[in-house]
Amino acid sequence: MKKAIILFSGGLDSTTCLAIAKSQGFSPIALSFSYGQKHSAELHAAKIIAKKMAIPHTILDLPVGQLGGSALTDDKMTVADYNGSDEIPTTYVPARNTIFLSFALGLAEVSNATDIFIGVSAVDYSGYPDCRPAFIQAFEQVANLATKIGVEKNCFKIHAPLSHLSKQQTIELGIRLGVDYSLTVSCYRANAAGEACGKCDSCVLRKKGFSDAALDDPTHYT
Amino acid sequence: MKKAIILFSGGLDSTTCLAIAKSQGFSPIALSFSYGQKHSAELHAAKIIAKKMAIPHTILDLPVGQLGGSALTDDKMTVADYNGSDEIPTTYVPARNTIFLSFALGLAEVSNATDIFIGVSAVDYSGYPDCRPAFIQAFEQVANLATKIGVEKNCFKIHAPLSHLSKQQTIELGIRLGVDYSLTVSCYRANAAGEACGKCDSCVLRKKGFSDAALDDPTHYT
Repeated sequence: MKKAIILFSGGLDSTTCLAIAKSQGFSPIALSFSYGQKHSAELHAAKIIAKKMAIPHTILDLPVGQLGGSALTDDKMTVADYNGSDEIPTTYVPARNTIFLSFALGLAEVSNATDIFIGVSAVDYSGYPDCRPAFIQAFEQVANLATKIGVEKNCFKIHAPLSHLSKQQTIELGIRLGVDYSLTVSCYRANAAGEACGKCDSCVLRKKGFSDAALDDPTHYT
Repeated sequence: MKKAIILFSGGLDSTTCLAIAKSQGFSPIALSFSYGQKHSAELHAAKIIAKKMAIPHTILDLPVGQLGGSALTDDKMTVADYNGSDEIPTTYVPARNTIFLSFALGLAEVSNATDIFIGVSAVDYSGYPDCRPAFIQAFEQVANLATKIGVEKNCFKIHAPLSHLSKQQTIELGIRLGVDYSLTVSCYRANAAGEACGKCDSCVLRKKGFSDAALDDPTHYT
């Protein structure tokens, strides 16, 4: 079986990605980061899900929070309620997906994997620039120019299977693949028990997804 | 003055880059990484040089060594003597420059900088794929697609001013700019005092540079 690295936060999207990679015949290696996120309950969820799915799971400590500049990592900044604005919200973390994909690339190379999955979507998302297809394509090119095997075979593939799916479609796909969304944590303000606020961007998008899919929302709210 | 992030190892190339950025009118911010490199004496050199040049200096801890796969970080692998081979040597660190540039991008974004300097050369180098101009260009594209300001203004520039210079030319340029190469550490097997082995790839290229430039080599050898 072909190995694949899955960027795995423990949230709804990346857990769906994990299930998609498995359904496509890959042998997934989950990769999570402790990067100074305030909502570190997602890491606890990630561990439980990986264990339940019997998937190897690596967690790396990254000093992303030290750089500052994001409400997700900076204690002096507050995560706002969802407000429907078109502007990039303060929860944007500078260079986060570039940093995460870089480490996935390193892990892929030492694992003899050339496939990386990332659960970004450009439909129901927070407007972060590093979630758009053009960014993913550009990083794929970097991967093929940066690495021994990429240079030899131009074989690196960055999979973003949720890219053109709404949250409703993502959830419907995950349900078909057997994902247990009650285990996942998406909330930017999740408490230590993994309970969600229901009001941040991430919660509102997720809640709408279950509602649009006419499914019971299994999220644990505070 | 326009700020620029300089990837700064404390070696010959990145110290020259620092001097070039200054000479071009940038206000440099030096960025170094403690990434599990065995030759951590370079970090000590980096601190001394940054202090002497009165340049702000950030050092971040990265779990690159945890990924393994390189003689520079893995205790079970040995750094070989220079052998003139065309193959990518075992000192290659998977995805290293991609990871380093990603963090430089994050620091640039929070510092309101859009210029990043990296001291790679595709002339006298160890054959690492992530030192070639095509890689640098691809990463520049990623930078402009991944970030708030990149998307708005397409303004990120990855400077690789040594790209087409031989080691001799780099040294001659650095000398003109006042670089004190006796402070720099390039050796892959440098001891705790920063003394060089004289035999690894990095030492042999550096030594040849001084010799070709008909300059006394100020390196401290064991």
